[in-house]
Amino acid sequence: MEKYKHSIPVQLRFNDTDALGHVNNSVYLSFYDLGKTAYFQTINKGEKVEQKDVDIVVAHIDVDFIAPVFLTDEIAVQTRVDSIGNKSFSLKQRIVDMNTGQEKCVCRTVMVGFDFKNNCTKPISEKWRQSIEEYEEHAF
Amino acid sequence: MEKYKHSIPVQLRFNDTDALGHVNNSVYLSFYDLGKTAYFQTINKGEKVEQKDVDIVVAHIDVDFIAPVFLTDEIAVQTRVDSIGNKSFSLKQRIVDMNTGQEKCVCRTVMVGFDFKNNCTKPISEKWRQSIEEYEEHAF
Amino acid sequence: MEKYKHSIPVQLRFNDTDALGHVNNSVYLSFYDLGKTAYFQTINKGEKVEQKDVDIVVAHIDVDFIAPVFLTDEIAVQTRVDSIGNKSFSLKQRIVDMNTGQEKCVCRTVMVGFDFKNNCTKPISEKWRQSIEEYEEHAF
Amino acid sequence: MEKYKHSIPVQLRFNDTDALGHVNNSVYLSFYDLGKTAYFQTINKGEKVEQKDVDIVVAHIDVDFIAPVFLTDEIAVQTRVDSIGNKSFSLKQRIVDMNTGQEKCVCRTVMVGFDFKNNCTKPISEKWRQSIEEYEEHAF
Repeated sequence: MEKYKHSIPVQLRFNDTDALGHVNNSVYLSFYDLGKTAYFQTINKGEKVEQKDVDIVVAHIDVDFIAPVFLTDEIAVQTRVDSIGNKSFSLKQRIVDMNTGQEKCVCRTVMVGFDFKNNCTKPISEKWRQSIEEYEEHAF
Repeated sequence: MEKYKHSIPVQLRFNDTDALGHVNNSVYLSFYDLGKTAYFQTINKGEKVEQKDVDIVVAHIDVDFIAPVFLTDEIAVQTRVDSIGNKSFSLKQRIVDMNTGQEKCVCRTVMVGFDFKNNCTKPISEKWRQSIEEYEEHAF
Repeated sequence: MEKYKHSIPVQLRFNDTDALGHVNNSVYLSFYDLGKTAYFQTINKGEKVEQKDVDIVVAHIDVDFIAPVFLTDEIAVQTRVDSIGNKSFSLKQRIVDMNTGQEKCVCRTVMVGFDFKNNCTKPISEKWRQSIEEYEEHAF
Repeated sequence: MEKYKHSIPVQLRFNDTDALGHVNNSVYLSFYDLGKTAYFQTINKGEKVEQKDVDIVVAHIDVDFIAPVFLTDEIAVQTRVDSIGNKSFSLKQRIVDMNTGQEKCVCRTVMVGFDFKNNCTKPISEKWRQSIEEYEEHAF
């Protein structure tokens, strides 16, 4: 189960680093965003999905910082869906060194279906569920 | 126990927002950083503590995103230490609307004593423990 | 003429720094944004002005980086309008050390009136011109 | 002369956008940083150059913002050296849409040789000059 079908390289920027000389903790979240956006695009068959058009919001994250990332590292962010409930689903993501395979950071995210018009939670659409199951090659 | 002695206002910047019109999730971590830095300075009696001089690292965070933050909101980040172990301690922080008291986001952080020379964990110093206990007004 | 009526302190964040140990060049622009937003709010008599409601866009900047900013520096961003044309106006801003008065960085910005509906430039409104002249205490 | 030999794609991140729905002005500078870093690596024959090991600093930039960049745009940053003086050299860079060729933004940067030990300017090394001339295929 610790397999990730989805993986994209992350382009590091100089100001991702901080005065400690490595990539700042808060920047990791934008890498996970990058992975999520690309994942959603993939399960939507390559159609670009703008986050503002998606009726899901991040409700919870927890992150283990395992090893620092340096500017000269070549890293990828890997993404998979771990579970789907009625009104939410869970992502597991990690940042790995593409050359050594070293795990740098692991993140679990709970995303919740959200109706921006009525400002309340709503069920995950059947279309999303199907697209995710199809991509992950198993039912949830 | 849900009391926070330490609270500082956060100065929001226009590019903290994203295309959804509110403050981007990944930016919250820099607010918690802001709170931590100020907290450490406070328990060190106002002496500025540069993060690079501190022998602790962030090992784990978990964050609940409760309500969005908008650019016109006036928010504060509140910080307290919740527990101190041998080689680690836990912070609890939250972001609140200073006018309404609304809780926007809650974060728990585990920080670990780290020896950057030898690249291994190390105990939290007695000086830190004492400074924190003195500030929080109870033993851990 | 090198006087700035408008000055606000900048709250530095740990990840404003980069691996060189000082505030990253690209972050200065967000400080100038901060100054602009506060300036516009001031000339509008304290009413908060959301950038998305303002029909002006940044067309040009030029910036002189004079001295590095460190995380322990206490800095302010100062802002004034230098000239107003028909469809544009120019801001001059600088970042100074609040304790020593040292000039860290100077920025000139050209902002252009913009009609987002019709996607073309448009004149600076008379209301803006008057508010700026009133605040700066001279005609342009 | 408006030719750029050096061009790299920019990986856009969701929080590069701001509440206006397009990439925030201040983020462009990090794209130019990306271009510079890759350019320096290229003229150094692929050897990674960490900015902290480079004895040059950014002294001046001026930037024309021509058209907004949206999250779904596919953009590249292009970089060339335009002139080399004794203690400084000038870069010209631009951001273009890779599909349409549309110019989004143009930036001129003056970089100055800097001796971090003695905190003063210093000449551009002969090695740099030669590497740049070789790459750009003309003398300066």
